[in-house]
Amino acid sequence: MKWLHKDLLDVSQLSKPEVMAIFETAGRFQELQERPVKKVPTLKGRSVVLFFAEPSTRTKTSFDVAGKRLSADTFSLAKSSSSLTKGESLKDTALTLQAMAPDAIVIRHWCSGAARFMADRLDCSVINAGDGRHAHPTQALLDSFTLHQEWGDVAGKTILILGDIAHSRVARSNVILLTRLGAKVRLCGPRTLLPPALKTWPVKVYSDLNEAVKGVDAVMCLRLQLERQKDGLLPDLREYSRTFGLGARHLELANPDVRIMHPGPMNRGVEISSELADSAGSLVLDQVASGVVVRMALLFLYMTRKGEE
Amino acid sequence: MKWLHKDLLDVSQLSKPEVMAIFETAGRFQELQERPVKKVPTLKGRSVVLFFAEPSTRTKTSFDVAGKRLSADTFSLAKSSSSLTKGESLKDTALTLQAMAPDAIVIRHWCSGAARFMADRLDCSVINAGDGRHAHPTQALLDSFTLHQEWGDVAGKTILILGDIAHSRVARSNVILLTRLGAKVRLCGPRTLLPPALKTWPVKVYSDLNEAVKGVDAVMCLRLQLERQKDGLLPDLREYSRTFGLGARHLELANPDVRIMHPGPMNRGVEISSELADSAGSLVLDQVASGVVVRMALLFLYMTRKGEE
Amino acid sequence: MKWLHKDLLDVSQLSKPEVMAIFETAGRFQELQERPVKKVPTLKGRSVVLFFAEPSTRTKTSFDVAGKRLSADTFSLAKSSSSLTKGESLKDTALTLQAMAPDAIVIRHWCSGAARFMADRLDCSVINAGDGRHAHPTQALLDSFTLHQEWGDVAGKTILILGDIAHSRVARSNVILLTRLGAKVRLCGPRTLLPPALKTWPVKVYSDLNEAVKGVDAVMCLRLQLERQKDGLLPDLREYSRTFGLGARHLELANPDVRIMHPGPMNRGVEISSELADSAGSLVLDQVASGVVVRMALLFLYMTRKGEE
Repeated sequence: MKWLHKDLLDVSQLSKPEVMAIFETAGRFQELQERPVKKVPTLKGRSVVLFFAEPSTRTKTSFDVAGKRLSADTFSLAKSSSSLTKGESLKDTALTLQAMAPDAIVIRHWCSGAARFMADRLDCSVINAGDGRHAHPTQALLDSFTLHQEWGDVAGKTILILGDIAHSRVARSNVILLTRLGAKVRLCGPRTLLPPALKTWPVKVYSDLNEAVKGVDAVMCLRLQLERQKDGLLPDLREYSRTFGLGARHLELANPDVRIMHPGPMNRGVEISSELADSAGSLVLDQVASGVVVRMALLFLYMTRKGEE
Repeated sequence: MKWLHKDLLDVSQLSKPEVMAIFETAGRFQELQERPVKKVPTLKGRSVVLFFAEPSTRTKTSFDVAGKRLSADTFSLAKSSSSLTKGESLKDTALTLQAMAPDAIVIRHWCSGAARFMADRLDCSVINAGDGRHAHPTQALLDSFTLHQEWGDVAGKTILILGDIAHSRVARSNVILLTRLGAKVRLCGPRTLLPPALKTWPVKVYSDLNEAVKGVDAVMCLRLQLERQKDGLLPDLREYSRTFGLGARHLELANPDVRIMHPGPMNRGVEISSELADSAGSLVLDQVASGVVVRMALLFLYMTRKGEE
Repeated sequence: MKWLHKDLLDVSQLSKPEVMAIFETAGRFQELQERPVKKVPTLKGRSVVLFFAEPSTRTKTSFDVAGKRLSADTFSLAKSSSSLTKGESLKDTALTLQAMAPDAIVIRHWCSGAARFMADRLDCSVINAGDGRHAHPTQALLDSFTLHQEWGDVAGKTILILGDIAHSRVARSNVILLTRLGAKVRLCGPRTLLPPALKTWPVKVYSDLNEAVKGVDAVMCLRLQLERQKDGLLPDLREYSRTFGLGARHLELANPDVRIMHPGPMNRGVEISSELADSAGSLVLDQVASGVVVRMALLFLYMTRKGEE
């Protein structure tokens, strides 16, 4: 499959065969990662700008590792060190970065639509690493890839996404991708943390976690952004944890082989009990490892636009 | 030409033939930048420390890209992460960095003379990336290189530098370099933003932008450092923009082919109208691209001291 | 010698032959550092995470230089940019980093025992770059290596460690290593800056610097952490400097060839006179240079577990 996309803005752009091509490429990189020397010369001489206007450890490091494992050079621009502090517009920052001729720009931005805004103005590939509440396509792809490697196929499986759905680009991108891959998606969270336009989503919504978890094959816990608490936007934590925190007692209602996921960083004891986070069914660290190889696959496909031959 | 300089402190050190050697080297790197793989092995195994005691995105990233495109390793030391926060003197920081045996140190510092101070004490090459109000030689070189590539020669051309001349190391280095290359330089800005000792400069000074712009071949707008406003050092922005902001109406008085430049980041609507920034005559993004290849040329010449053979 | 250790947590883990193997390897890297191109392909394709939860310039840069000189890829995680700001536990950060499959993690942390905590939970090598008041093994190794290169052997020499012993992991690790190598160690500092359990240490303690310095072969000054002054934990600086600041007058009492050391960054005029810092007997910059080659040796030994063959 020749890769036809210039940019990755959201998973909605990707057909199922395209997602499968990404998974296949990621799978091959995953095999390479089992060797003592994990680096390959695939993107030698290419360069990737990591432009993160929001703080992020794991996503930025994951892209950094992915780029360097492919022998690309990476350039990190963090918010604090960027011209943003000098009042430059996103457009000018974007054009300036492009004038330095990188092969791809990975962008995280607090503003929904920032990635599309850049992609529309730049010739080089733009990879969305999370824009506002809109989309986080690489997280959704690594989540589905993790399940795909576990199960062979996610079609027909039932996945519960649990927590603060309203503010979560992770939830949004996962709903789109999982349903496209043929999975059934359930959502559960406190009413105040459910998005308003939920009726149009292809999901079942639950307000009772005990109901929601019945017979599911996987639970994706979402991070409660504790830093937003000072804005009065979060429910009481103890109350939240009692009602919507995932614990061992819930899993008795799920499929016996249920998998537990979390995009990290986890608030142990809030969204998820510490016991479950470390349990045999937990895929939390598999998700991190998948993140590297899925991002290697994405950098490879978007930067070379070659794909499988 | 064998390269004889150890350090680049200001453009005043460079003879016209030396500037031409830099431009020729930069021109050859510019051709290489048009290939899909832009990286060359020229400085493989060498290392460059980027020591930026003042925040900077574009200059630091530009040097980082330049270094890595030449296959050098780069090491970034930012102010916040540096021992400066622990009260170490510049001298000790310099000696410490040199003890790690880099091939060159690129320094940006708020203190005029900081680059010379380091150069006098270190054996390795020191490249000034902007010191206080004193000099910004690599910016002046990239500006002149951009015009050189446009025109073939800057000799005989008339260039207007517009804005806050008093606080601008960019203006200072450009005046020296442009006149050395045979161009005529005009300055224009509010009286409070002109330097005191201006009489000794080889320039014509204008207080009326409409007069200043008559027949010029290029206008270099300077950035108004809005962050200095809280010190009461800046004029009223609306007043400034009305009197000294470059707009389409001014260009009717200039040479029909007039080029527009800005070192960035731009305050659109203040120093320059958004329309002009994006106009056909704008070289703003060419300047960014020139920045990479001029810095590649400088790193190459100063780190190998080979030059053309 | 086949290298059997997975982690470097403190110098107490290392036998004298193991220390000698480190010094021998470092010595060979030191010779390579005298060539124009200092980089070697030894660790090509390997990756090292530099996880610094406390600010540090010289140690982090030294490890970064060491890693890249060996052709490894390095990944810097600083406190401010890390998930620590999002409240993630050290355990989860550690597991997350490991899931990205680096070959080693270098950690600096304000918490004594942090390095051991990580080492116990991770399969990859953990190198302690300073944990709380506990240990700073790579500093001690570079200090002893510097003396070893000067003298051939540190056995039988007398070394005075001077200053804030109580809060110094540098002092703690140096006492252990120097005595293991056969040196005699003296400590001197104000009573409030001596640790409580000093009686069990294999050292002689002095409260009078003039006594302490008599006949010593080297003086290691410790940094007074001025940033701790606001906690009321430091003595008056002028008083301290008069009583415990090392000056030329003290050296007349020492061995004529006495060497002066300081881990940096120095507070000139506080712990050490500026004159002594720059004197012929000063090894301060040799220590920095040793830092790079000793860390190259450590990364090589711990990441390949090969050692000499």
